[in-house]
Amino acid sequence: MSLQSIKYTRGSLEILDQLLLPVQSKYLPVRGVEDGWKVINKMQVRGAPAIAIVGCLSLAVEIHPEEFESKKSLRQELEGKLNYLVSARPTAVNMKIAADELLVLANDLTKDDDVDVAAMKQRFLNATEAMLKKDIADNRAIGAHGAKAILQRVAAAAGAPMSGPVRVLTHCNTGSLATAGYGTALGVVRQLSELGKLEHVYCTETRPYNQGARLTAYELVHEKLPATLVLDSMVAALLRAKNVAAVVVGADRVAANGDTANKIGTYQIAVVARHHDVPFYVAAPLTSIDLHIPSGDHIIIEERPDREMTHVGEHRIAAPGINCWNPAFDVTPASLITGIITERGVFKPAQLKEAITKLLES
Amino acid sequence: MSLQSIKYTRGSLEILDQLLLPVQSKYLPVRGVEDGWKVINKMQVRGAPAIAIVGCLSLAVEIHPEEFESKKSLRQELEGKLNYLVSARPTAVNMKIAADELLVLANDLTKDDDVDVAAMKQRFLNATEAMLKKDIADNRAIGAHGAKAILQRVAAAAGAPMSGPVRVLTHCNTGSLATAGYGTALGVVRQLSELGKLEHVYCTETRPYNQGARLTAYELVHEKLPATLVLDSMVAALLRAKNVAAVVVGADRVAANGDTANKIGTYQIAVVARHHDVPFYVAAPLTSIDLHIPSGDHIIIEERPDREMTHVGEHRIAAPGINCWNPAFDVTPASLITGIITERGVFKPAQLKEAITKLLES
Repeated sequence: MSLQSIKYTRGSLEILDQLLLPVQSKYLPVRGVEDGWKVINKMQVRGAPAIAIVGCLSLAVEIHPEEFESKKSLRQELEGKLNYLVSARPTAVNMKIAADELLVLANDLTKDDDVDVAAMKQRFLNATEAMLKKDIADNRAIGAHGAKAILQRVAAAAGAPMSGPVRVLTHCNTGSLATAGYGTALGVVRQLSELGKLEHVYCTETRPYNQGARLTAYELVHEKLPATLVLDSMVAALLRAKNVAAVVVGADRVAANGDTANKIGTYQIAVVARHHDVPFYVAAPLTSIDLHIPSGDHIIIEERPDREMTHVGEHRIAAPGINCWNPAFDVTPASLITGIITERGVFKPAQLKEAITKLLES
Repeated sequence: MSLQSIKYTRGSLEILDQLLLPVQSKYLPVRGVEDGWKVINKMQVRGAPAIAIVGCLSLAVEIHPEEFESKKSLRQELEGKLNYLVSARPTAVNMKIAADELLVLANDLTKDDDVDVAAMKQRFLNATEAMLKKDIADNRAIGAHGAKAILQRVAAAAGAPMSGPVRVLTHCNTGSLATAGYGTALGVVRQLSELGKLEHVYCTETRPYNQGARLTAYELVHEKLPATLVLDSMVAALLRAKNVAAVVVGADRVAANGDTANKIGTYQIAVVARHHDVPFYVAAPLTSIDLHIPSGDHIIIEERPDREMTHVGEHRIAAPGINCWNPAFDVTPASLITGIITERGVFKPAQLKEAITKLLES
């Protein structure tokens, strides 16, 4: 079973404290929205979907034992507490989107005379729980589509009916620690393993925050997958030496033409993969694909503080006084991307806009 | 004036303690071969040429005030102490080569009846001091040839009579802290600056030992050169965004066909430079070019301990239990190298063998 960063049953929520990883594995109980606000604010939970889901589930845990006099008082409590949760990390847009959706639901239920206060609470609890289930189900679908695409491509290149176990490379953390569970790019790796088709996975350190070395490596060790950590500078040497069948990475945002913004270093890996004729896949849920952005040129890249590069914790690792360039992301042009793996299938960048538009219409 | 890692005048030697860099800049007096042995053994001095030169100069400092009864007793002392110095880091082959050369000289002088004991000591002191001077002079020549080649290429590409100031990228540390002074690839950067033609230099962090962030950045800050540190994962994004005119790196070993072994990450930078049509230069003294090695396939790559990747000092930065792949070097194929910059000129890889053979014959 894949690592659980969020443990939920109705009335009970625990999250794996990411600030203590990888040295310590400790689950924190989240007993209500105050705890939810704290774990989001202190970044004990990270990753856009995980933040939203933990926030909403903390509200579900809080209202579960409560009894409400009226639908109006329930609605007021939901609105107040959702707004409170959004304030934990105002830049985390997923929490705001989830809060808005749940508020629409609360308003609809309030107006619906066929629903009494107990049913309204049930429906609200169901809705928050569905978010968790949907995120994991979507990730599992991404994993299945991605694994199939990689294996088919390897088989086709070899002129064989099916592929044997493969070696893959991933970057940053896109697993259970960045999503509600299972993961996107790491979900593809997990699916390869479940199919008995994972010979080896290589993960990059992913400077400056070392999400690969700390988080992806943690997940891979936890699940005893055959895995090796490499430095960000080693990808070219690795692809030359180790017969890697595919690179699979996540995405922060995919533009309509397939250009993909992702963790710094992704573009470099794509260049290196192309040089070595290794297919390069982006794994992302449909919610990360923004058809309103025509191309990557329109994606603004956040530049982060120098200190992330010059220090590890309190330990200085760079010469005092040196300037740093610290873009958080880079943009990989669609021309370097073999396929974009979503929960609804794998698309070539050039077909992405049309395919997604059709899916959204159907 | 460029940073001095070795300060020598006859009878006096100090070295910059590299273990304290970049946080503290402290010169250590080296009063004789015992001090010399210690600073080499403890890696307070690093870099193959620097180790040999500091070792030999520590012997020069030791014998400078001494008086010897006979040439034989001088010769015996030299032999014993040179062997002692070689034992400080037995794998550092440059110290052994230098010791062998100086022993040949000592033997020749012992046999030469026209040389008395005082003259023999003088000749020996001159020879050790010449090593320091030659290394710096060679580096200055590398710098001059490299800067000229880069500027000519930029001018030619622009169809202009001469180039304006340029932006360059370098990897690892090849400066005063890795050589006797001035540096190889960093010597090219210094020369561009002396010519008023350095718009900006970018240096990579160079994981896992962070020689770029610690040492190159230290040298660049020390000399107030316009410089920015980037992570190893950012090179592609940098070349795409910042109009870099050339990449220039050092070499541990160059094969006869121009294939070059250098710090891990060099090959990846070469791939990325090619993708962005940025010229890629290797700067190395003739002593690093080994015509006995036909190609890079014959260079064995040392794999280093996992701990270098999983820890920074005592601080663990990777998940416990993860496997690591930690090659110290990689090999950049000659096909990705624009030119090899030596103290005798810049050569295309394909012309290297013939050109060097001619130079060695002349």
